[in-house]
Amino acid sequence: MTIQAGQQSAASPVASQQMRAALAALRDQPIPATSKGFGRLAAAGRAPGAANPSGANPGVGGPGAGGPGAGSPGAADGTAADSIVTSASLAGRRPYLLGPDFVLPVLVLREAAMRQNIAAMAGYCAAAGVGLAPHGKTTMAPQIFARQLAAGAWGMTAATIAQVQVYRAFGVPRVLIANELADRGAIGWLAAELAADPGFECYAYVDSAAGVRLLDDSLRAAGARRPLPVLVELGQQGGRAGCRSMDEALAVAKATAAAATLRLAGAAGFEGNIHGDSAAATAAAVAAFCRDLRTLGDLLPADPAGTPHLLSAGGSAYFDIVARELTAARPGHSRPEVLIRSGAYVTHDHGLYAAIGPGAGQPGRTGPALVPALELWAPVLSRPEPGLAVASAGRRDTGVDQGLPVPLRIRHTGGRETPAGRLRVTKLDDQHAHLSVPEESPLAPGDLICLGISHPCTTFDKWRVIPVADEEYRVIDAIHTFF
Amino acid sequence: MTIQAGQQSAASPVASQQMRAALAALRDQPIPATSKGFGRLAAAGRAPGAANPSGANPGVGGPGAGGPGAGSPGAADGTAADSIVTSASLAGRRPYLLGPDFVLPVLVLREAAMRQNIAAMAGYCAAAGVGLAPHGKTTMAPQIFARQLAAGAWGMTAATIAQVQVYRAFGVPRVLIANELADRGAIGWLAAELAADPGFECYAYVDSAAGVRLLDDSLRAAGARRPLPVLVELGQQGGRAGCRSMDEALAVAKATAAAATLRLAGAAGFEGNIHGDSAAATAAAVAAFCRDLRTLGDLLPADPAGTPHLLSAGGSAYFDIVARELTAARPGHSRPEVLIRSGAYVTHDHGLYAAIGPGAGQPGRTGPALVPALELWAPVLSRPEPGLAVASAGRRDTGVDQGLPVPLRIRHTGGRETPAGRLRVTKLDDQHAHLSVPEESPLAPGDLICLGISHPCTTFDKWRVIPVADEEYRVIDAIHTFF
Repeated sequence: MTIQAGQQSAASPVASQQMRAALAALRDQPIPATSKGFGRLAAAGRAPGAANPSGANPGVGGPGAGGPGAGSPGAADGTAADSIVTSASLAGRRPYLLGPDFVLPVLVLREAAMRQNIAAMAGYCAAAGVGLAPHGKTTMAPQIFARQLAAGAWGMTAATIAQVQVYRAFGVPRVLIANELADRGAIGWLAAELAADPGFECYAYVDSAAGVRLLDDSLRAAGARRPLPVLVELGQQGGRAGCRSMDEALAVAKATAAAATLRLAGAAGFEGNIHGDSAAATAAAVAAFCRDLRTLGDLLPADPAGTPHLLSAGGSAYFDIVARELTAARPGHSRPEVLIRSGAYVTHDHGLYAAIGPGAGQPGRTGPALVPALELWAPVLSRPEPGLAVASAGRRDTGVDQGLPVPLRIRHTGGRETPAGRLRVTKLDDQHAHLSVPEESPLAPGDLICLGISHPCTTFDKWRVIPVADEEYRVIDAIHTFF
Repeated sequence: MTIQAGQQSAASPVASQQMRAALAALRDQPIPATSKGFGRLAAAGRAPGAANPSGANPGVGGPGAGGPGAGSPGAADGTAADSIVTSASLAGRRPYLLGPDFVLPVLVLREAAMRQNIAAMAGYCAAAGVGLAPHGKTTMAPQIFARQLAAGAWGMTAATIAQVQVYRAFGVPRVLIANELADRGAIGWLAAELAADPGFECYAYVDSAAGVRLLDDSLRAAGARRPLPVLVELGQQGGRAGCRSMDEALAVAKATAAAATLRLAGAAGFEGNIHGDSAAATAAAVAAFCRDLRTLGDLLPADPAGTPHLLSAGGSAYFDIVARELTAARPGHSRPEVLIRSGAYVTHDHGLYAAIGPGAGQPGRTGPALVPALELWAPVLSRPEPGLAVASAGRRDTGVDQGLPVPLRIRHTGGRETPAGRLRVTKLDDQHAHLSVPEESPLAPGDLICLGISHPCTTFDKWRVIPVADEEYRVIDAIHTFF
């Protein structure tokens, strides 16, 4: 049986009452005045000069506690004082991102790009015959999870129990924990959560007999009532977790099948850490790893109840190769149920994934047409040397682990925009960007720089509330993150 | 006049009713079940399996909405279900950090170490005759700000208006913005905030005539009612912001003095980006820069009303050199009012600041006795190769920009602790640590690794609520951050 997007959607209660209610509450939650970027708009309702714990600390007083006040240091356009600011209220307000309502630097999520990416990936997976369990660690944003699930995702992927706890607080019904579990207390929490909600389905990884014992013991100690489905993880020598040989993986599978609290549910791996000497060498090594994973899946003992095994791999860089290799016809074997776990596709980027993702036009690569959805806007603070500008954006505002942000455009005082040209970010401090500037450039304090980012995962986690803008930079929504 | 810690404390309303009320509300705010590490303890009160927006989203229903529930997947020790969890309630509960109440990985702030650092730094500054404006960007934790202010700090330093907005939401009365301002909307907010609260005192930097014009124009447009005190920033060639010559700085000072909305209040600089070929060369270059800054201060036109100028420098690495150079006797000049701005001292670290801070026993360096206060605890997930372990902690949990975390101890299953020995972190992914392990080590899944961190600024910002523990790892408080 092949997982189809439509089937997944039908099989999992993606729009459960529970999830809808939690998201509706989130969308009606006052955006705290302490949320970076929103400090002016969100503070419009508080009394001038007064400390406002209900603004500072979301909703201590509940909606209404931070209601309209007179004479507040509100937004210049007069619309912000109408009522408290929530994600839901922004669709009606439509404040301008680059006007006085928002405090810079600010990260913005472009709605049209995100919508395109979600649809393109759903279409790609349906056509490729693979299921999608988007890695929620990228955004940790339940509002985005809901859109991914509504587009047909099988469920959400998580890296840690802490992430699962966020997912469960918002009613996500099906979770793949793409990781071993080794925190006994956390496993106890998971057992209780599974016992409390028969509709909650959760998968995890195992890669050693010791890990199987730890998981089995912890689940027993917690009085687990139904077996936890687990995937045997295959790794690479010098890589991260995962068994280093087929024999080892099959031994772990055997130990799993013998553990009363576990159910052997398939095999998984992660190809995102594989690096070759060239793009072609990396692609070949990724493909070879996927074929090994496929072989492991073929060799696993069948589930006693006949439940088909899952086969999962696929980060955000090489998921096209994963899909191709794991679904390829193999004489004498049925096509497995394949789950890919890409997370970064939802916003793509102007750096890492633009360079190595399947949309980058690399030879032999196929994939959905993804477009970058995140931009970071920052004002120039200083032009202290002819070749140097300093802008107000730093490591606190964007990930730098996969490369520095990329200047896209300059918005000059007065509103005229020009391409960034030879402007380059050379270094980020905690709160500052150092930019190399052509000496003849008129770039001056107060000009705004629009930066593309590299690696959405470590950019989302710098922001608690992210404005969502239309193509005219009117803010029509805001996404809450839970890192 | 020399700033004395005691005088600062008396001069600024550090324990204003406003700040006390905001902090009391924060301490009584339910810790969301979505707070990393607290997912089990904080969820104890919610109905099993139910989405809980009031837990997920701090306090939508206000205190009490997430009250005790029966049959919840609560903590194993039975204490957690007594009532909702707040910072204030933890002093009575005293849950054990390394037991089932907390979900790993978890960052912990050791109370005794933090207390020592705050007291040591206050004592150091008083003895050195310098004021302390701790950089709040390190922790963005108003609960910590209050302790720094209560220990005599002059006020808080901020890098951005967004940070000032957090400070103001908690009633911080005096703020040094150690940065130029170039976001017109944000400057408008600041003008309104200053107009609304005559007790609010705020300083910012200027480093160009263009910046002075932008600030003056924006303050005029906002109808600013009292002049904003600004410090002329002196920089270094190849450095960050700041004037590159004395002449340039004096020209900016002149432009400032001529701007009706500004008041020339002194000079400032940042020595933390200065690097020499050796520790001694760096120290010498830092000292030379501080002497230039001192000279600039001496050359500035006096304030027409006779208000003494401020002179500020001092990050967390070289503040002892700053204090020495800026307070050194100069024939014919009075001793200036010096403000240092260290932020990281409050927790110190096991990396960058342990190596280059004044407590590191470097020749010719003097400083307070600081001790590392932050630890990151993570379980081993996998030992896939004899020389490799994988633990559940990554870039999402600790800063890596100034070096990888340092294994301190291993807590084996059963509770026995051993020194980390030759264990090393070799790489961090988003959610995983790769550790080099001596092949003979018995390290196994479920063992816990206690990691010291490098660079508290980029570690605090990975956590929204941080447990504070006593020396027996009983959690007695929790710190909310606002990044």
